[in-house]
Amino acid sequence: MIHNLLKDIEIILASASPRRKKIFEMIGIKALQMPAHIDEVNFCNNPRKLVTTHAVNKALAIRKIVDNDYLIVGSDTIVYQKSEILEKPENKLQAAEFLTLLSGTYHYVYTGVAISYKNQIYSGYEKTKVTFRNLSAYEIEEYINTKEPMDKAGAYGIQGMGSQFVKKISGCYFNVMGFPVYRFYKLLEEIL
Amino acid sequence: MIHNLLKDIEIILASASPRRKKIFEMIGIKALQMPAHIDEVNFCNNPRKLVTTHAVNKALAIRKIVDNDYLIVGSDTIVYQKSEILEKPENKLQAAEFLTLLSGTYHYVYTGVAISYKNQIYSGYEKTKVTFRNLSAYEIEEYINTKEPMDKAGAYGIQGMGSQFVKKISGCYFNVMGFPVYRFYKLLEEIL
Repeated sequence: MIHNLLKDIEIILASASPRRKKIFEMIGIKALQMPAHIDEVNFCNNPRKLVTTHAVNKALAIRKIVDNDYLIVGSDTIVYQKSEILEKPENKLQAAEFLTLLSGTYHYVYTGVAISYKNQIYSGYEKTKVTFRNLSAYEIEEYINTKEPMDKAGAYGIQGMGSQFVKKISGCYFNVMGFPVYRFYKLLEEIL
Repeated sequence: MIHNLLKDIEIILASASPRRKKIFEMIGIKALQMPAHIDEVNFCNNPRKLVTTHAVNKALAIRKIVDNDYLIVGSDTIVYQKSEILEKPENKLQAAEFLTLLSGTYHYVYTGVAISYKNQIYSGYEKTKVTFRNLSAYEIEEYINTKEPMDKAGAYGIQGMGSQFVKKISGCYFNVMGFPVYRFYKLLEEIL
C-alpha cells in the first residue's frame, strides 16, 4: 500500500490545494505542502499534454529549491468540454457560464500527476467522464451563492454541494476531486 | 438544491453510518441520526430488491416511533459479485476472503434509499460498477491491519485507504460511499 511504499521518504506536495492535502491524508501520507508557481503553458487542444506538463513543471519548480532526497508530487486538474478548457472561474459571471455549459450533459476531467525523486521524473494523467443532471438558472445562482465554485476548475466541487449535480461518472473519482490515486500508485510502483 | 428543498423540514437519518452522516453534511443537511434495527430479508439473487426493501424497512422502523412531520431517510448498501452478496465481514478471515474475491476484477455496489414523509414512502436504488486493481496477499494483510475493512460492506472503504485499490468506477460515486446523492435528489423532487 502507498503509505508503506513511502515509509521513510520525505514527501512534498507541490500544490496549495486543500482537496489534494485531504486525499493525501486519506491514503495515510504526511506531506509538506509547498505551492509551486509556474507559467501556464498553452496547449488548448491537448488537455492531456496540458495537465501533464503543468504537473511536471510544478514538481520541477520545487525541485530547484529542495534537495534530491525529497519525493516531490506535482498535479494539475482541468475540466474539458467540447474542445474548451474550463479552469477556475475568474468571477461569478464566469462561474455561471461554466455551470450552464456543464448542465444536462457530460464533460471530462483531466488530472496530470508528476513524481520527481532522485534524478528521475515520472508523469501520467487520468481522464474521467462526468455527467451532470439539468441545472436550473435558479439552482446555478443558489450554488454560486454558496461560494463553493470559485476556487475550482470548471466551477464545481464534486466532494461538496456540487455532488448533487453529478448523475454519474466513468473513470477515477479521485481524479475529479483533484488527485488520481490509482495513477499515483502505478507511478510509485515504477519509480521506487 | 437539496438543502433548500429541505429547508424547514426536520430530517431523520435512519442509520448509524458515519459515512452517511458525512455525505449529509457535505450537501448541507442537518439530520438527527437514529439507527434502525430491522430483520434482514433474504433476496440473495435480487440485490436491487434486497437494498430497497432494507431501506424501506429502516425508514418504517423509525416512522413507528416519531410523528408524521419528520422526513425519514433509510438506506442500505451491499457489494455484489458473481451472484454473491458481500455484506460487512464478520472477522478478519472473512475480510481477507472478500478482498481476495474483489482483487483484479469488477463488482457492483448497490445502495437502496427510501424516504418516508407525510403518509408517503418513495424508494429507489443506485448501482455502480467498481473495478479493483490486483491486490497481493501482503497488501490485503496490510489493509486488514488498518482495521478499515471491518465495518464496511465488501470489506473496503472507497473514501479511505481503500481508495488506492480502485482503478475506476462507472456510475454514482456516493453510492459506493454509502448514499446515492443523485437518486436522493430525484426522490425528493417527486415527494416534495
